[in-house]
Amino acid sequence: MRYTKIPSETIRRLPAYLRALIFLDEKSREYVSSKDFSEYVHVKSPQIRKDFSYFGAFGTKGVGYRIITLIEQIKGILKLEKVQKTALIGAGKLGTAISLYPGFKTYGFEITAIFDNNNNKIGTRIGEIVVEDCWNIATLSDRDIRVAIVAVPAQSAQETADKLVGAGVNGILNLSPCYLAVPKRVKVTTIDIAMELGILPYYA
Amino acid sequence: MRYTKIPSETIRRLPAYLRALIFLDEKSREYVSSKDFSEYVHVKSPQIRKDFSYFGAFGTKGVGYRIITLIEQIKGILKLEKVQKTALIGAGKLGTAISLYPGFKTYGFEITAIFDNNNNKIGTRIGEIVVEDCWNIATLSDRDIRVAIVAVPAQSAQETADKLVGAGVNGILNLSPCYLAVPKRVKVTTIDIAMELGILPYYA
Repeated sequence: MRYTKIPSETIRRLPAYLRALIFLDEKSREYVSSKDFSEYVHVKSPQIRKDFSYFGAFGTKGVGYRIITLIEQIKGILKLEKVQKTALIGAGKLGTAISLYPGFKTYGFEITAIFDNNNNKIGTRIGEIVVEDCWNIATLSDRDIRVAIVAVPAQSAQETADKLVGAGVNGILNLSPCYLAVPKRVKVTTIDIAMELGILPYYA
Repeated sequence: MRYTKIPSETIRRLPAYLRALIFLDEKSREYVSSKDFSEYVHVKSPQIRKDFSYFGAFGTKGVGYRIITLIEQIKGILKLEKVQKTALIGAGKLGTAISLYPGFKTYGFEITAIFDNNNNKIGTRIGEIVVEDCWNIATLSDRDIRVAIVAVPAQSAQETADKLVGAGVNGILNLSPCYLAVPKRVKVTTIDIAMELGILPYYA
């Protein structure tokens, strides 16, 4: 099924909806009303109903939306139904913390390859995975890995991104505090933790 | 000086502007044109000129904007001129990686207190800082710490936020994958790394 008319603002909200729905499902909830759901996702209920209507989900009066159905629909839209093999570049402290983070399962991601250019790290294990030399990034296209997390120092982030793009990766989660230049076909999301902190004192 | 009319969308862009300006300053650049700057921040140059004009920064034709002046102005607006003492809650892998992350200096943050409720961690050192029992969070108001980073498991995040709010914290950077309920006076920014990853396959 294709959903061609979903606005990008709705798409941006879907991962948070999914997280909340999985949370409710784990609590053995079967149905949720848009009003109830509003408190979990911090989005107003008319907006929630509008967002859900884009993919043909309509609640039943007095009952609400069936949670498991919504989870399947949202996973379908976000292309998260099957496990996404994911590469991690950078086996430093942040990379290691991330590779062991359980939250990725929620969205169907599994880190299956870790790369570093430090000889002291290459060949060691993080969890079950042996750290490989960054030269091996070129092999990602043969290993069906299309998504990568970049957790390297800012000065080597662009070079890393270039290698990933060359290996056919088309989604990059960038945790290095810098802008990455990539071709249009590649989607980059940058998280600069310190920068997010930088906005707080203005409001505080 | 007070800047009352700056739109919140402009405020959201200022930390990224600041990061790029500091980068240019470190490269010994003195001036930057809006056109040139556009490539560093990925914002169109008319928007940059408009944003800068809100705080009275106008470039000189053929020369551009004086970088050091912009840095001072933006730090002034974001209230980042003086060092902000910051607390970190959660001395696990993610918390430890964050506490050692050098990027916070850019924005004038210094982690001066770390808390955990694990007896094996309380009393140990991360860098220069001795990990304290979470009970001590209540002392933050006496220690002039108003900003905190939450890096605890999702199930204890709300309880941690409640303690922080009770201790007078008014800015929280939440790295736990959940929504935090706080009073209106408190600003929360949530970063869910896995959720950010969740958006990539849709575009990939």
